[in-house]
Amino acid sequence: MSDDAPPKPRSHGRMSISASVQPRELMGGTPRLRGAWCARIVTLFPEAFPGTLGLSLTGKAMQDGLWSLETIDLRPFGIGKHRNVDDTPAGGGAGMVLRADVVGAALDQAAIGTPMDRARWPVIYMSPRGRPLDQATARRFAQAEGMTILCGRFEGVDQRVLDHYGVEEISIGDYVLTGGEIAAQVLIDATVRLIPRVLGNQASTEEESFSDGLLEHPQYTRPVTWEGRAVPDILLSGHHAKIADWRQDMAERLTKERRPDLWRAFRARHGRDPEEDREL
Amino acid sequence: MSDDAPPKPRSHGRMSISASVQPRELMGGTPRLRGAWCARIVTLFPEAFPGTLGLSLTGKAMQDGLWSLETIDLRPFGIGKHRNVDDTPAGGGAGMVLRADVVGAALDQAAIGTPMDRARWPVIYMSPRGRPLDQATARRFAQAEGMTILCGRFEGVDQRVLDHYGVEEISIGDYVLTGGEIAAQVLIDATVRLIPRVLGNQASTEEESFSDGLLEHPQYTRPVTWEGRAVPDILLSGHHAKIADWRQDMAERLTKERRPDLWRAFRARHGRDPEEDREL
Repeated sequence: MSDDAPPKPRSHGRMSISASVQPRELMGGTPRLRGAWCARIVTLFPEAFPGTLGLSLTGKAMQDGLWSLETIDLRPFGIGKHRNVDDTPAGGGAGMVLRADVVGAALDQAAIGTPMDRARWPVIYMSPRGRPLDQATARRFAQAEGMTILCGRFEGVDQRVLDHYGVEEISIGDYVLTGGEIAAQVLIDATVRLIPRVLGNQASTEEESFSDGLLEHPQYTRPVTWEGRAVPDILLSGHHAKIADWRQDMAERLTKERRPDLWRAFRARHGRDPEEDREL
Repeated sequence: MSDDAPPKPRSHGRMSISASVQPRELMGGTPRLRGAWCARIVTLFPEAFPGTLGLSLTGKAMQDGLWSLETIDLRPFGIGKHRNVDDTPAGGGAGMVLRADVVGAALDQAAIGTPMDRARWPVIYMSPRGRPLDQATARRFAQAEGMTILCGRFEGVDQRVLDHYGVEEISIGDYVLTGGEIAAQVLIDATVRLIPRVLGNQASTEEESFSDGLLEHPQYTRPVTWEGRAVPDILLSGHHAKIADWRQDMAERLTKERRPDLWRAFRARHGRDPEEDREL
């Protein structure tokens, strides 16, 4: 690409294979597929997408036109001959910070044709400083018309661009990644599977993982005996009420053992003293 | 692939491009590159790898032979003509559960040539039921010789295979994904960047995100004024002690506002009453 070429979004999903799509304006954004949820991703590594999102259920849903994905390469918005996107931190320190003007220009491009209302179209920055992603947040995003996701690299992004564009910072967990691209794929996967018709009748069951704030009970399937280990008798009893009780009990034990934080919240929600545990 | 073809691991990284690699045994595992950390991934979607891990710093480090990645396709271990890998849950319920015998055979394959000691070679199942991934866990994995990662799909995996193989369940966060492949990429990215020489001198700085259990202070860079917004004066003052104080103060404010859980832990560690906040 020459230095002066205008940045062009790259599309995945139904738009890229449809013959009936409207012609794009030369400098304009890609027209969104009517009614289809869309992720616009600002990244230095557009080739990372759709990646795993193009496979399996999310890939099938993309082919079916239930959602689409567009990448906007950050590099062409860079400064000077080398298209620099970052600079040293004000006040000193190691690492490099993504420039507000460079990121701002890319976000302007990403905003073309999208609602200004952040409830209808959230603009997200993947960052360990963000609020932790959870199912409620994924549901909120799935109910929007789409979202723009900025993938960071290096030491972070100039705070002013986050303030100016009303960018929401989201963290997928308390660990450090080399960049925001895999985190964006996590966010998109968690969101897209909640879009109607993506999972079909699988949705209700998989939701159970956190439905009551408990970890899920253990699962078993055939064969009944394997390596000298048997499926618990209760699961083969056919007694549905007892099976439900056993599963609830196992879910509570597991949560108490592995996730004291979730366990305390569960106890509080159910009006039990979180400190006073009955014998499990 | 015919029904009777033996499953073969697919390699990425230096082994796949090296001319000096030893010939593989027909049914044996792939010999590991001496001294290089290795991820072995059991998955129904081997084509998801290396994905984003093949780009940028992790991709460069893979090309440099600092780590490698091998995928083991779960499908050929399946049962019968259709190579079924899952079955209905014992005790009823929706969804499908990965069979212990199928997963066990794949884990046997993955174990060839690896240490039995789980400290030297952890065997991981990506699951929302697992213990949450954090930096300490990623550091532990980076100090191992490698690890095997089982990527789930559907409703989960038969509990017996987790028990029998001493599998450690790891969760990347409290949300539901369509499968474990993207979660495995998160785990590998967080781990590989901690392997010596992968990041070089970037390591120390990026570690800062959670080094004292606080979220990182905001960052700024050039231009000094952008869209009417100026870099905070203090950062341009050249007064290093005051800059450090300001950054600490901002990190504490941000943590208190966004992550009361981290804030309470920070206060407790520093001998301050978590409930009694000084004015920030």
